[in-house]
Amino acid sequence: MAAVALVQGASRGLGLEFCKHFLTHKAPSAVVATCRNPESAMDLAALAAQHPGRVTVLKVDATREDDIKGAAEVVNRSFGKVDLIINSAAMLHPTGKGETSLRDVSAEGIVSTLTTNTVGPLIMAKYFTPLLQKGSGSFGRQPLEKAKQHSGIIVNMTARVGSIGDNALGGWYSYRMSKAALNMATKNLAIELGRGRPKVLCVSLHPGTLDTDLSRPYHRNVPKDKLFTTKHSVEHLMAIIDGLNIEKSGKAYAWDGSELPW
Amino acid sequence: MAAVALVQGASRGLGLEFCKHFLTHKAPSAVVATCRNPESAMDLAALAAQHPGRVTVLKVDATREDDIKGAAEVVNRSFGKVDLIINSAAMLHPTGKGETSLRDVSAEGIVSTLTTNTVGPLIMAKYFTPLLQKGSGSFGRQPLEKAKQHSGIIVNMTARVGSIGDNALGGWYSYRMSKAALNMATKNLAIELGRGRPKVLCVSLHPGTLDTDLSRPYHRNVPKDKLFTTKHSVEHLMAIIDGLNIEKSGKAYAWDGSELPW
Ligand SMILES: NC(=O)c1ccc[n+]([C@@H]2O[C@H](COP(=O)([O-])OP(=O)(O)OC[C@H]3O[C@@H](n4cnc5c(N)ncnc54)[C@H](OP(=O)(O)O)[C@@H]3O)[C@@H](O)[C@H]2O)c1
Ligand SMILES: NC(=O)c1ccc[n+]([C@@H]2O[C@H](COP(=O)([O-])OP(=O)(O)OC[C@H]3O[C@@H](n4cnc5c(N)ncnc54)[C@H](OP(=O)(O)O)[C@@H]3O)[C@@H](O)[C@H]2O)c1
Repeated sequence: MAAVALVQGASRGLGLEFCKHFLTHKAPSAVVATCRNPESAMDLAALAAQHPGRVTVLKVDATREDDIKGAAEVVNRSFGKVDLIINSAAMLHPTGKGETSLRDVSAEGIVSTLTTNTVGPLIMAKYFTPLLQKGSGSFGRQPLEKAKQHSGIIVNMTARVGSIGDNALGGWYSYRMSKAALNMATKNLAIELGRGRPKVLCVSLHPGTLDTDLSRPYHRNVPKDKLFTTKHSVEHLMAIIDGLNIEKSGKAYAWDGSELPW
Repeated sequence: MAAVALVQGASRGLGLEFCKHFLTHKAPSAVVATCRNPESAMDLAALAAQHPGRVTVLKVDATREDDIKGAAEVVNRSFGKVDLIINSAAMLHPTGKGETSLRDVSAEGIVSTLTTNTVGPLIMAKYFTPLLQKGSGSFGRQPLEKAKQHSGIIVNMTARVGSIGDNALGGWYSYRMSKAALNMATKNLAIELGRGRPKVLCVSLHPGTLDTDLSRPYHRNVPKDKLFTTKHSVEHLMAIIDGLNIEKSGKAYAWDGSELPW
C-alpha cells in the first residue's frame, strides 16, 4: 500500500513545504495535510489542486483535542494507517515576538504557546499512534535482510533554542520552554512506542533558521547563508528521516544530522 | 536587615518543611509562606502560631497571575525585599497519578500540570525579581573579602524524572514535561538575572523521593532507605543552597549535590 504522510500545520512555512516534497518526491504517496483554517489556506488548496486525488486537507487546530481525535477517525476510515507524522505547527509567542526579558512574560502568553507547541504534538501522538502502529514502515531505514523493524515515525519540529544545554543567551521564555517540554515528549514517546511491536519511532528535528513568518522579525540579524529556504531545510530533514531506525529514535537532531544536547 | 525567605506552596510537604527549617535554624529571619487556601492550611497556621511575628501567610494560587502580583505588592510593603524564594508547589497530575502510558494523556491534564508546575514558578520570578534584586544576599555563599556577589536566590523544585537525559522509563508525561520546561526556565532566569547587578541566582533542585502526598501512590515501590522524610531532604537541600554562588547558578542539582543532566 502507498505511503501515507501526515503534516500537522500545513498551511504555511515548513509544513507546506513538507507537503510539496512528499507530492513531488514520494509518489504515489498520499498526503494528509492538517491546518486550523482550511478555507483560508490558499497555498495548500492550490497545491492540492495541482495533485488531484493525493491530498486530504483536514481541519485541525492543534489546541483542540476534539479536532485531533476527529482527524484520526477520518484518516482511519480513509487509509487505515499512517507512516509518518510531521508535527510542524508552532508559534514563537501569541504576540509574534519572543520575550526579550522577564518583564515581557505573562501566564497567558506562555500557556498559549505551550498549548500549541507542546500539547498539540503530544495529543497528535495519542490519537495517531494506533494508525502509526498499522503503518507500512515506508519512511526511515529498514534492515535489508530482516523483517521490518518499525511501522511508523513521529517527527516533532523542535528548535535549537529549545535545548537547555545549548542555551547561552536566554530570552524567548515561552518558546524555549515549549520546545524543551516537547523534547521530553519525544523522549517519552520513543521509549513507550519503541517497546512494543510494531515499533513507532519518534525524534525531534531542528530545521535551521527559516525564511518563514515565525522568525521573520529576526531575519535581519541572521547571516544570509544561515537563513534557509524551507525547500533547502526539508531536503536536509528528509535525509535524516530517511536514515531513521530504532537506534536513532528518542533524540534531537539539527538539520545537518548532528545531535542536539537536551 | 534580617533575612526574608519566601516559600511558595507552603501548606504541606516539602514547602511546609522549608518553613519549619527557616523558623528553627535561621532566626531572626522572616518567613513568607504562600498557599492557595490559607484557611485550610492547618499545619501552616499551627507553625505560624508557634513563631509569633515571624510568619506572613499569603494566599497564592500558583495558577493565578493576579495572586502572585498581589503577594509581591504585600511583600514589598512589608519587607521591601526577599532573599530567597523556594518554588515548591506542584502536582503529579490533576488525577494524582502520573500517566502510565499515552492512553492516559489528555490535553486538559497536561495543560493543568504545566500551569501549576511550570508557569507558576516563572510568574513568581517575574513579580519577585525586583524584590530579590533588593535582597541582602543572606542565603548562598558570598565571597569572603569582596563585596556581595548576589542579592537573592530562586530555587525551583524540579525532579529527577524531569531530566530528559536521565529518562529511561518513560510515562508520567505531564509531570516530566512540566519539570523539563521548568528547568529551561531556571536556565533562562539564571542567564538573565546573572547579567546585571545586583545578581539573582537560580537553580533547580531535586529533593529525592519524599514521604509526602505527591508520591504517596508509589511509595510501596521505593526501597525504605530511598524514601526521605521532608526533614532529611530539606537538610540536604539547605546544604546546597548555602553553597550557591554565581558559578553554580543555572544548573539542576539532586539532594546530594550532584549535577543532574538536562
Ligand atoms: N522559522 C524558523 O526559523 C524555525 C526555527 C527553528 C524551528 N522552527 C520550527 O519549525 C516549525 C515550522 O515553523 P515555520 O517556520 O514553518 O512557522 P510558520 O511559517 O510561522 O508557520 C506556522 C504554522 O503553524 C500553524 N499553527 C500555528 N498555531 C496553530 C494551531 N493552534 N493549530 C494549527 N496550526 C497552527 C500555522 O497555521 P496558520 O496558517 O493557521 O496560522 C502555520 O501553518 C515550528 O515547529 C517551528 O517552531 C522554525
Ligand atoms: N514527593 C516527591 O517524591 C518528590 C520527588 C521529586 C520532586 N518533588 C517536588 O518537590 C516539590 C514539593 O513536593 P511535595 O512532595 O511537597 O508535594 P505535596 O506534598 O503533594 O505538596 C504539594 C504542594 O503544592 C501545593 N499546590 C498544588 N497546586 C497548587 C496551586 N495551584 N497553587 C498553590 N499551591 C499548590 C499544595 O497545596 P494544597 O495543600 O493547597 O493542595 C501543596 O502545598 C514539588 O515541586 C515536587 O514536584 C517531589
